[in-house]
Amino acid sequence: MSVNHRLSLFPISTQIRHDGDAQRLTIGGCDLAALAATYGTPLYLYDQATMDAAVHAYRQALAQYYPGEAAITYAGKAFLCTAVAQWTQRRDLWLDCTGEGELAIAKAAQMPNARTLVHGVNKSERDLRAALAQAAVIVVDNLSELTRILALAPQYASMPELWLRIRPGVAVETHAYTQTGQADSKFGMALTEAIAAIAQCRQAGVTLSGLHFHQGSHFHDPAPVGPALQTVLDLVLEIESQSGWHPQTICPGGGWGVPYHEDDLPHPSIESYVQFVAQTLAAGCQERQLALPRLVLEPGRSLVAQAGVALYRVGAVKQTPARRWLLIDGGLADNPRPALYGARYSALPVAQPLRPHTHESWLAGPFCESGDVLIEALPLPAIEAGEVLAVPVSGAYQLSMGSNYNGARRPAVLWLHEGQVHLVQQREELSNLTARDCPLPHFSPHPQSA
Amino acid sequence: MSVNHRLSLFPISTQIRHDGDAQRLTIGGCDLAALAATYGTPLYLYDQATMDAAVHAYRQALAQYYPGEAAITYAGKAFLCTAVAQWTQRRDLWLDCTGEGELAIAKAAQMPNARTLVHGVNKSERDLRAALAQAAVIVVDNLSELTRILALAPQYASMPELWLRIRPGVAVETHAYTQTGQADSKFGMALTEAIAAIAQCRQAGVTLSGLHFHQGSHFHDPAPVGPALQTVLDLVLEIESQSGWHPQTICPGGGWGVPYHEDDLPHPSIESYVQFVAQTLAAGCQERQLALPRLVLEPGRSLVAQAGVALYRVGAVKQTPARRWLLIDGGLADNPRPALYGARYSALPVAQPLRPHTHESWLAGPFCESGDVLIEALPLPAIEAGEVLAVPVSGAYQLSMGSNYNGARRPAVLWLHEGQVHLVQQREELSNLTARDCPLPHFSPHPQSA
Repeated sequence: MSVNHRLSLFPISTQIRHDGDAQRLTIGGCDLAALAATYGTPLYLYDQATMDAAVHAYRQALAQYYPGEAAITYAGKAFLCTAVAQWTQRRDLWLDCTGEGELAIAKAAQMPNARTLVHGVNKSERDLRAALAQAAVIVVDNLSELTRILALAPQYASMPELWLRIRPGVAVETHAYTQTGQADSKFGMALTEAIAAIAQCRQAGVTLSGLHFHQGSHFHDPAPVGPALQTVLDLVLEIESQSGWHPQTICPGGGWGVPYHEDDLPHPSIESYVQFVAQTLAAGCQERQLALPRLVLEPGRSLVAQAGVALYRVGAVKQTPARRWLLIDGGLADNPRPALYGARYSALPVAQPLRPHTHESWLAGPFCESGDVLIEALPLPAIEAGEVLAVPVSGAYQLSMGSNYNGARRPAVLWLHEGQVHLVQQREELSNLTARDCPLPHFSPHPQSA
Repeated sequence: MSVNHRLSLFPISTQIRHDGDAQRLTIGGCDLAALAATYGTPLYLYDQATMDAAVHAYRQALAQYYPGEAAITYAGKAFLCTAVAQWTQRRDLWLDCTGEGELAIAKAAQMPNARTLVHGVNKSERDLRAALAQAAVIVVDNLSELTRILALAPQYASMPELWLRIRPGVAVETHAYTQTGQADSKFGMALTEAIAAIAQCRQAGVTLSGLHFHQGSHFHDPAPVGPALQTVLDLVLEIESQSGWHPQTICPGGGWGVPYHEDDLPHPSIESYVQFVAQTLAAGCQERQLALPRLVLEPGRSLVAQAGVALYRVGAVKQTPARRWLLIDGGLADNPRPALYGARYSALPVAQPLRPHTHESWLAGPFCESGDVLIEALPLPAIEAGEVLAVPVSGAYQLSMGSNYNGARRPAVLWLHEGQVHLVQQREELSNLTARDCPLPHFSPHPQSA
C-alpha cells in the first residue's frame, strides 16, 4: 500500500511540497501545518477546486449521456453553512433543504427560491410556512402533508410548486440506515397514494412539476436505480393515459458513494453512475413514448466528501499490550460516522508524509467513550505527540451530525481556494455551551423570583 | 405486557390524572399535554424527585454497606447544563467534568473546586489550564499528561490535587463502545506506569490522593468490578510496602445500567450494585490490612436517565405494507442512541394512556435518514396525527450527544418539581444555525475586501 494510493483520497489540489529534506502536505496551495498552528485543531478544511471538479464531472456526464434538460441539486444535509450555500448558488446548483433550519441557511446565502427544494418525511407547520414564505419547491412526502400544504397555501403570496416523493419499493445495497427506497421505508408515498395526490393537486390548481424518489445514500452500484426508474416510468405512463399529466422533472435521488479508505479503491466513477441513470431514463421514456423529463440528480456526499479534510493534533501516544494508540483532539463529537456506521477512514501526517508506514496505529479521540475510536489498525509512520494528522474524505455527514459531547466546542471550518484561506465557520466559544441555560431559582445562591 | 409495567419506566412522580372519562399523564404534578402545548415539541423534561431518589438510594446503600467514608460523583457527560450542575452542587455530589467545556458549566453553577473532577484521555493544554485555574482535582490519564501538568502547575496559585486513572485489564459485559477497563482500552495507565507516576508525584510534592478506574458504562452485573478492585488493591499493597503511600480515595468508576424498555424489567437495583462494590472493597482492604479508603462512586446514567422524558408530537401516521409508522418531530438529532447502540426505547401517549395496545408501531423522526427510527415494533394504541408521545428514560446520553442534523434546533429542557415548571434550557433559535458562519467574500453579491 503506497502513500500515493492514500494521497488519492485527498482533495485534488493536494501536493507534497519539498523544501530541502522537509516535505509538507498542502491543499489549495495552503500549508496544512501552518493552518493547524494558526487556527487550532480539530480543524476542517474544504477545497473549492475539488467541489468544482465534482460538479464538472456531473455536468459533463449529463451533457454526454442525457439528451434532455438536466440539473444537479446539492443535498445540504451532507454539510451546509452559509459558504457552502453560496457556492451552491454560484455554481447554478439547486439546493435540497430539510425543514426551516436549512431553509434559513439557504436564505442567508440568497439562494433563489426556484432552485430551493424542501424535503422531509414529517414537515412541521413551521417547516411548511418557511417553505411557502420563501416560495421554495416542496417535495410532498405523504397525503396528509399535501392536505396541510393546500390549507396553508392561500395565506401566502403565490401558490407553491410541488413535487411528489414516491416510494418505488426497490432497495439498493448500502448500510441499512442509509437505505431509503424499500417498500417499508418511512419515506414517501406508495404508487396508489401518488395517483390520489396528483388528482388532488390538479383539482387544487397547484403546479405539480416533479416526481422524486430516493434509493439511499452512499451506494456504489447504480443498477438498483434501474428497476425503481422503470416502476416510476410505468406510473407516469399510467397517469398520463388517465389524465394527460406528466412530470416536467424526474429526480432519481440518492447519494452516489465515495471511497473513504484506500481499501475502497478503485471506486466506480461519477460518470459511470450518471451514464447508467441517464441512459436508463432516456431509454425508458423512449420505450413508453414519453416526453423526456428534466433529469435532476441529487448528490450530496459525492460533491463535498473528498473536498473535506479534518486536521487533528496528537496529544499523546499510548502503547497498550496489543495496540499503539494515537490520542487525538477530536473524534466522536465532530465525526460520529465510525461509531454510527462502522465507517473506515485513513490519515497521513502533514509533516514528512512520505515516511514509510512502520506502525499499525489506532486513532482515538479525547471523549470518555470507547466508541470514540476514529480509525482502527491503520499503517502509519512512528507518529509522535505534537504531530498533526490529516484525515481525508471528511467533508460529508461529519460536522452536520456533530455534537458538543463532553463539552466539546465545534471546530472551525476553512475554505481553501487558489492559495487563499477563508474562515467560513468560526470555532465555537465556551460561552456557547451555556448560552441557552437558565439557572434554577430554587438552587441559586441568591434566589430570584420565579 | 401491561401499561403499568411500562409506566414503571417513567419518573417516580408520574401519575395518571383522571378527569371524568379523560386520563392524562402527569409528572411532578405537571400535565404533559399542557407542557407540550406551551413549550412546543420535541421537549425534554427532568423530574427532580426522581434524581433526588436515585441519590438517596446510593447514599442509603453506601451507609448500610460501606464502613468507611463515601461520596458520589455525577458523571456530567450523561447530561450537563447549568441547572443539573446546580443540582449536583446542592446535593453535595461531586461533579465529573471532561475538559474545559464541562468545567465552564461547573463554574457557571458555582460548583466547589474540591468536588470538581477533571477527566479525559487526551486533555489539551486548554483543558489542563482550565483545571489548574479552577483548582479542580485532575484525574491523570497517562505519564505524558502528568509531565505536562507538573510543567504548567507552577504558573497557578496552588499545586493541583491529582488522582491516577488505572487500566486494570478486566472487561465488563456491555456494548463494546461503552467498555473501558480492558487491557487494550485507550483509557488510563497500566500498573507499571502507575507506579512510575506515583514516584513522580511524590518527588514533585503534589497531592496524589486517589486511584480511579472505570469498567464501562451501562452494565447490569457488578461482578466484573470485583477482579478489577482486587487488582487495584494488590497494586495499593505493593506501593504501600515500597513507599508507604496509599490512596486516600478509591473510585471504581463505571456507570450502573438502567432499564430502557419494559423487556429490561426487572433490573437489578442500585442497592445490589453498591452492596457488591462496597463489600468487595471493604473485605479486600481487610484481607490486605489496608486502611479503608474513601469510596467514591461515579454514576451518571443511573442518576438522571429515568428522570428524563422526551415529548414528541406525531405529525403523520403512515401505513406501509408491513409497518405502521408514527412520524414524530424528533429523533436522530436529539437522541442518537438507537442508531449508535441499537438502544430500545418505549413510549406512551400523554392523553388516554390506558388505551389497550392494539397496534404494533414504528416511531420515526423527521430526519432524512433511515437510521432515524427511534422505536421499532412497539405495541401502542391506535395513535393519531397530532397526539403527543412521551418516551421515558430519556435523561442520559441523548441531549449531550445531540446535533443540529438537517438544521434541527436543539430542544427546550424543563425542570419539574412539586408542581412547578422551570425552563432550564431554551430551545435553540434558527439564528443560532448561522451564528458561527462567515460568508465567502468572492461569492458575495457585494464583494467585501478579504
